[in-house]
Amino acid sequence: MKINVIKIGGNLISNKKILNNSLNFFCQLKGYKILIHGGGNKADSVLQTMQIPKKIIQGRRITDKDTLDVVIMTYAGLINKSIVSLLQYYQCNAIGLCGADGLCIKSSIRKKNNSIIDYGYVGDIKKSEYINTNFLKFLLKNNITPVLCSITYDVEKGLLNTNADTIASNVAIALSKQKCNITLHFCFDKKGVLKDITDPCSYINKIDFNLFKIMKKNHTICNGMIPKLENAFFALKNGVYKVYIGSPNHLNNPDGSKKTRLCL
Amino acid sequence: MKINVIKIGGNLISNKKILNNSLNFFCQLKGYKILIHGGGNKADSVLQTMQIPKKIIQGRRITDKDTLDVVIMTYAGLINKSIVSLLQYYQCNAIGLCGADGLCIKSSIRKKNNSIIDYGYVGDIKKSEYINTNFLKFLLKNNITPVLCSITYDVEKGLLNTNADTIASNVAIALSKQKCNITLHFCFDKKGVLKDITDPCSYINKIDFNLFKIMKKNHTICNGMIPKLENAFFALKNGVYKVYIGSPNHLNNPDGSKKTRLCL
Repeated sequence: MKINVIKIGGNLISNKKILNNSLNFFCQLKGYKILIHGGGNKADSVLQTMQIPKKIIQGRRITDKDTLDVVIMTYAGLINKSIVSLLQYYQCNAIGLCGADGLCIKSSIRKKNNSIIDYGYVGDIKKSEYINTNFLKFLLKNNITPVLCSITYDVEKGLLNTNADTIASNVAIALSKQKCNITLHFCFDKKGVLKDITDPCSYINKIDFNLFKIMKKNHTICNGMIPKLENAFFALKNGVYKVYIGSPNHLNNPDGSKKTRLCL
Repeated sequence: MKINVIKIGGNLISNKKILNNSLNFFCQLKGYKILIHGGGNKADSVLQTMQIPKKIIQGRRITDKDTLDVVIMTYAGLINKSIVSLLQYYQCNAIGLCGADGLCIKSSIRKKNNSIIDYGYVGDIKKSEYINTNFLKFLLKNNITPVLCSITYDVEKGLLNTNADTIASNVAIALSKQKCNITLHFCFDKKGVLKDITDPCSYINKIDFNLFKIMKKNHTICNGMIPKLENAFFALKNGVYKVYIGSPNHLNNPDGSKKTRLCL
């Protein structure tokens, strides 16, 4: 079973026109596909309107109870359903899901004693069994396209906030372990991994793990791109067939054209 | 195919302990079941926190664009996913849906010229074909319990706000037309339709359409109970097998005990 797993980043979601355009390209992808999204920017603006302070430590969100409610409302409610509504408009029969729906993505709350920082209501996907691959395949085989938001489910703790890149990698890995042929695409508002952050055309066509280590060392890549690439290489090392990073406009391009392909 | 269609009212949702209790009773119902909910109280409190004025004309909410975003966040996001999460905890394999998911509940935006009042982004279910009964039956047959929030989908206008009682009746009617044997339960925070609003034990065991007309005339029933009963009789007149109004605590009671049964 060949499946495209596509994660779309927050910058593609917060602008209505760009989201429309991205989903249009997603719909043109032939065959089985799964869409995964977060929506941090929108959550931030809702937090601000509700006068709930945004808490970030070392670049990562601290999810207290009020923040959890807001991310559930925003990711699983407004963003997820707006995406599903647009996909239906483009005649892609989609269904929006959080981790609790059909128990599709379980997680374990991040233990306080594992870390100096208490991240709050944050869930980690500890093994590929946390992904309900049978349910996802069941939907796909019935021509239903799953749209997963970045809210997972812990049997004891309920709904938890989880990084969308991590969900995408884990979904791709779990399906690969079930003998699916998975191409994983991380889509964002750039053409790919850039050699020069100030030049949007300077995307690198192919990055292997050695080049990644060199680029990390000489600071060609930094900040959010590092965990994204680590997620991508983690997927490749765990059986995912292909991983790309790039713009949704080039989702349908022939192999590796106008995007960054990662290889081991 | 025998199916229980249960609508739970806003007062059962806004208190966590009562919601838990209600869902526990829902889970004890044997056989196929569908849950439907709104959540006006919670939407009101989010509107207030976000300083969006609540607009009500003649007892009905006016849904402008900002209010629509809030009801999507609240109904399809926070409430729907909290319910699904609790149902999973009680080992009922649920899936939360709005009307766009799998195109399960379509609607048409209420035309401005049909009414002196412009209700805004409000959807009407014009015919039973607007309910995707095949999709609902497909989920049920695969042991997945649908949890429908009161957000519907208009192909042109996208997501719309729709009264949850109306959705419940229409789902019950549409499934009845597909030869399903439907029992429809409207659950709220009272034992049934009360003879005396000040006496919570004064529920009426059975109301037929004649009695309803008399009670309406002599003001034994008034306000929100009138459209609820009209919805209920509309369902009975359109092929729904049984309709009850009462507390979720008595969902599992033998026929008509400790709740109000409606008959033609």
